[in-house]
Amino acid sequence: MKKMINNPDDVIDELVDGYVIAYPDYIRRTELHQRALIGKKRNPDRQVSILIGGGSGHEPGFLGYVGAGMADGVAVGNIFASPSPIPIQAVTKEIDDGHGVLYIYGNYAGDLMNFEMASEMTEIEDDIETAVVIGNDDVASSKDIDDRRGIAGELLVYKAAGAAADFGYDLDEVKRIAQLANDNTRSMGIGLSPCYLPQTGKPSFDLEENEMEIGLGHHGEPGIEKTTIRTAQETVQVIMQNILKEGLYQQNDEVVVLVNGLGATSQMELYIINKEVAAILNERNIKTYKTYIGNFITSMEMGGFSVTLMKVDETLKRCISHPVDCPNFKEV
Amino acid sequence: MKKMINNPDDVIDELVDGYVIAYPDYIRRTELHQRALIGKKRNPDRQVSILIGGGSGHEPGFLGYVGAGMADGVAVGNIFASPSPIPIQAVTKEIDDGHGVLYIYGNYAGDLMNFEMASEMTEIEDDIETAVVIGNDDVASSKDIDDRRGIAGELLVYKAAGAAADFGYDLDEVKRIAQLANDNTRSMGIGLSPCYLPQTGKPSFDLEENEMEIGLGHHGEPGIEKTTIRTAQETVQVIMQNILKEGLYQQNDEVVVLVNGLGATSQMELYIINKEVAAILNERNIKTYKTYIGNFITSMEMGGFSVTLMKVDETLKRCISHPVDCPNFKEV
Repeated sequence: MKKMINNPDDVIDELVDGYVIAYPDYIRRTELHQRALIGKKRNPDRQVSILIGGGSGHEPGFLGYVGAGMADGVAVGNIFASPSPIPIQAVTKEIDDGHGVLYIYGNYAGDLMNFEMASEMTEIEDDIETAVVIGNDDVASSKDIDDRRGIAGELLVYKAAGAAADFGYDLDEVKRIAQLANDNTRSMGIGLSPCYLPQTGKPSFDLEENEMEIGLGHHGEPGIEKTTIRTAQETVQVIMQNILKEGLYQQNDEVVVLVNGLGATSQMELYIINKEVAAILNERNIKTYKTYIGNFITSMEMGGFSVTLMKVDETLKRCISHPVDCPNFKEV
Repeated sequence: MKKMINNPDDVIDELVDGYVIAYPDYIRRTELHQRALIGKKRNPDRQVSILIGGGSGHEPGFLGYVGAGMADGVAVGNIFASPSPIPIQAVTKEIDDGHGVLYIYGNYAGDLMNFEMASEMTEIEDDIETAVVIGNDDVASSKDIDDRRGIAGELLVYKAAGAAADFGYDLDEVKRIAQLANDNTRSMGIGLSPCYLPQTGKPSFDLEENEMEIGLGHHGEPGIEKTTIRTAQETVQVIMQNILKEGLYQQNDEVVVLVNGLGATSQMELYIINKEVAAILNERNIKTYKTYIGNFITSMEMGGFSVTLMKVDETLKRCISHPVDCPNFKEV
């Protein structure tokens, strides 16, 4: 393991320090908790507040998505581990404007438990109404949609929710639009090389020199199949077959495309992957409304990527086009 | 070598395809040349045009910096190899508005030769005036400033030049401001792991499992020293000592900080590195005007990073704060 860090035990606090120092106009810590971060660019039209969060190791997820038009606050967990209810409650109290808080997080056991507990605590102790949308876009993780993990598609759910909140909608409506965004979103990824956990030095999974894992989760959860490495074209064909067989994306539909690098896969490769995604959408007469390519929700220095499609109607198109201003994620 | 590509011989054309397909509102090919790309968001106040370019493998550099407030066009070379004069001339002809074209590229023998040849061709054949600013920010590459390589600091030169062009300045003044930006900029990087050249499968350099190379260039050029891997704090101290001993950055100066990942180093690490950079600037009473952290000019999947400082006066602050709109680099 080669990492440019200091004491492995301090990685989370130091990464948060480095981020907050870099972007003081965007984000601050609450006095209530070191790992509870609050945005500084809230749209004055916004009533409902949005809280995101999850384990660390996905940078710029999730703290990078606190900003104008996106989340109002974030609870930061340990590496690949949910934040505890305490920072979630701290963020909730600080960002609530009296109109309730929408929680958006991925479908993982730890997150479910801790966010639910925080929700109960804030409702009872602080009289704050909360609602929740759970990201579950990863088609490779289960045939049962309710058991699926959330991966990069969550970014698009944040964006839809953030826009809806900026439009001044109430908690029910912001939740409805975020849920629509989630329901219209499917992703699938592959892994090429592991990341290493700072405290143990252990790889997140094992692969042979010439192997790839199709359907790998973004904490290294096993996928559908290990195979010898294929071309970009062949790999994207497998991914798109799995996404398209869901039946959600039909001829003449419009979609947002998100090609997300996991950390160590070059931008060059991501552009080539997008060429292959676009070719398949073109064959199927599915139209691309907008494309995002980059390292948006990573797994530290894991090699690999995911492809996400979100079907957009007029509501979601308006949300996706709404301006956002986060340090490294802006829409003008 | 594990890369998600198709035929290694097609990597450049396919990455350009994937990029142009993703961002059709931002960039197009010229009919004159496949590797000559033209921006579509030119500010109407702009008279002077800006042309950037260099080898591929640095994505989102350099094609990612064509956009509003940045470059008007880019000439794309092979991996780690300069573009030939033909695409440079093609871009020049297409973007010139009758007020001349500023070339900005790094201080490498191939780029110097090809851009100079293109400049002569366009002046003679097309009667277009050109000027040039050559990036040479890498303090590790030579004691003689004129022999230094250009690395990530070029991004800040593009930004200063783009703003100056948007202000409607003439070629002399745009060149003067871009040169000022370059002269105020110093960088230094380290390498942790190599990238692999798609056509040969060979690593860009060799390092032992526990080694790092201080001062490594972004094509794998040798640095100052190979050492066992150090902490982020120790490594940043070495980098900052080398940058600060230039004498350019003094107490009460204001600087832009750029922490640039080379490809495979996680965002988490880059945030921790920024914490260490900020601590040293703080000790020296040097003020941070703005911080950029990300993978801006990469070396494919190379592990490592660089730190850049640019001293800013009122002119450069106005340039740095000017809005830009590139697909993955925006200032609002």
